[in-house]
Amino acid sequence: MSQFSATDHQMMSLAIDLAKKGRFTTAPNPNVGCVITLGDEIVGHGYHKKAGEPHAEVHAMRMAGDKAKGATAYVTLEPCSHYGRTPPCAEGLIKAGVAKVVCAMSDPNPQVAGRGFAMLEEAGIEVHVGLLEQDARVLNPGFLKKMETQRPFVQLKMAASLDGQTALANGKSQWITGPEARKDVQAYRAQAGAILSTSKTVIDDNASLNVRWDELPSQVQETIEQEELRQPTRVILDRHHQLTEELKLFQSTGPIIRVANQGGDLDISLTSDEQLDLAKTLDALAAEHQINHVWVEAGATLASSMMQAQLVDELIVYLAPKLMGADGRGLIGALGLEEMQDVIDLNIKDIRMVGKDIRIVATPQLTKN
Amino acid sequence: MSQFSATDHQMMSLAIDLAKKGRFTTAPNPNVGCVITLGDEIVGHGYHKKAGEPHAEVHAMRMAGDKAKGATAYVTLEPCSHYGRTPPCAEGLIKAGVAKVVCAMSDPNPQVAGRGFAMLEEAGIEVHVGLLEQDARVLNPGFLKKMETQRPFVQLKMAASLDGQTALANGKSQWITGPEARKDVQAYRAQAGAILSTSKTVIDDNASLNVRWDELPSQVQETIEQEELRQPTRVILDRHHQLTEELKLFQSTGPIIRVANQGGDLDISLTSDEQLDLAKTLDALAAEHQINHVWVEAGATLASSMMQAQLVDELIVYLAPKLMGADGRGLIGALGLEEMQDVIDLNIKDIRMVGKDIRIVATPQLTKN
Repeated sequence: MSQFSATDHQMMSLAIDLAKKGRFTTAPNPNVGCVITLGDEIVGHGYHKKAGEPHAEVHAMRMAGDKAKGATAYVTLEPCSHYGRTPPCAEGLIKAGVAKVVCAMSDPNPQVAGRGFAMLEEAGIEVHVGLLEQDARVLNPGFLKKMETQRPFVQLKMAASLDGQTALANGKSQWITGPEARKDVQAYRAQAGAILSTSKTVIDDNASLNVRWDELPSQVQETIEQEELRQPTRVILDRHHQLTEELKLFQSTGPIIRVANQGGDLDISLTSDEQLDLAKTLDALAAEHQINHVWVEAGATLASSMMQAQLVDELIVYLAPKLMGADGRGLIGALGLEEMQDVIDLNIKDIRMVGKDIRIVATPQLTKN
Repeated sequence: MSQFSATDHQMMSLAIDLAKKGRFTTAPNPNVGCVITLGDEIVGHGYHKKAGEPHAEVHAMRMAGDKAKGATAYVTLEPCSHYGRTPPCAEGLIKAGVAKVVCAMSDPNPQVAGRGFAMLEEAGIEVHVGLLEQDARVLNPGFLKKMETQRPFVQLKMAASLDGQTALANGKSQWITGPEARKDVQAYRAQAGAILSTSKTVIDDNASLNVRWDELPSQVQETIEQEELRQPTRVILDRHHQLTEELKLFQSTGPIIRVANQGGDLDISLTSDEQLDLAKTLDALAAEHQINHVWVEAGATLASSMMQAQLVDELIVYLAPKLMGADGRGLIGALGLEEMQDVIDLNIKDIRMVGKDIRIVATPQLTKN
């Protein structure tokens, strides 16, 4: 990528950092950041904060004003070319007189990819694409996965003792992980479009499964205002219609979708073993509810079903510094494996301490070595 | 600790680094390093390599020669004051004409602590103690634990999948962890005075439980020569006399102690539930076999017995990036716990990647919060 200078890299890094500021509010829209420079000066910058509000480029152009003329715009995603709730950003950049546009990546929607660039080039603007593309992709795992596969990005949360137990034999489990790990979970929930769980988890724990301002990590509280807090949609698998109105779930704010075979808010066909079809559930959430990022928080049974169906993109595993003994309850359900070559292989992406607990981020290997 | 200068800290750090060079060869002796300075010049340095060979101070004094006169000696441990296989180092420092001795810590044996310092001070040498004491203690966990409690330092090795399974339901388990983790285990074995295991593990895996030069990490191969490799004593709990001569254990080099109730190399009384008394086994290894550092490598049953008896000082847990399912075999045996407050709490000391596996070092909390 020798076509890009050190300054180009710096400016795109800045645009990526700006984009991150939207990560708790933009859903289902993508996180996008923009920096406009004229000579050595940053004359404008902005990020997309919320669906329906101005795009990153618009904020940056407003700040730049007349200085956008002859300037370079760094944008983390191809400027849009269609009339939606806002006019196309490509048109705005042309009108503002920008001379050059540097983008991290093209529009992930293969149907429209390149149209924004084409509009810019037709207007005589110099266009460069591909700077820090990998970093820009990480900004929008859900948006990209949905655009590219019509299925949401799925994160599976698990928590256990160091020996892989989620509860004692008698079911007792509070609290395995510490307060910092629970805050970390709140931050993950706040970034997701939906939280997927089961009526069993909701009933057993009387769980509200929402985002609570007071329980968010301080870094999140410093990023958004309390009134900007967006509640993810709680999607509860409730095949046997066990959810009842007095549950905390219904007493707490945020949309709820009950998934059933018949009579749910979302009706999904059953698989041959009489379970709700998880792949179809995810596809329906994407197609009918604009949900592109799902955070799964349930028990070992759903975890193993999701893993076996290869529907999980990322595992977030909290391991508490405890030993509970093999007579407890396992992190994941039975997999019925006969050969070591059949175990589910993972790639570890990150390990770190979150308070006194260990957090491991891993991705499943979908094909065997 | 304002009595110590920046130079003092540098020289003691150097002495500690020197001491580490002996960690695969000194057992059961402690790791000790020594640096001698005259003015701004380092005139001598050395470390203790092997029982029966010269102590660190002797190596350093030999190198310093006449320049030891009026010099400062930095030693990681109080110089010895008794006639053993070598004359006392305190006497040597006096004869060499050293003016000042700085030590990280006093002799851990409360019976002799301070005698070396007293000899030096009586000879008019200035003595300072306590510089980088914590770092110096880490050099010799086994030596210190045995001196202070008459019981060896015990490390418990465990390896499992990320969901805490050590084998599939049918017992298949090779290989859960990768080659780098297995090399790491070889390095731990090489530092231990003994490897404690059970006849079940030895028979099931036909395990030799020794240190194999070719399988050591390259950092270890760069620290010692192949012919210097010391084999830890393999201590096998063999209550039912199941070990047979054709096992690999007996075909490989290194001493072996069979522990039984009667007719073993070491006979140990049984506990009320007919098991070999683990605390007595450890105490006997320390008292009768000069073993001060035990590496435990066995199955879930011994692991849980050791943990429940509070005999473990440090856990080394390798977690492989795999999910095996809760129908597998657990990392630790059943603990029969009824309340969450009864789980075994740990403190995490270190987490890192070893190849593709995660290695966690933890210490048990012996008292509850």
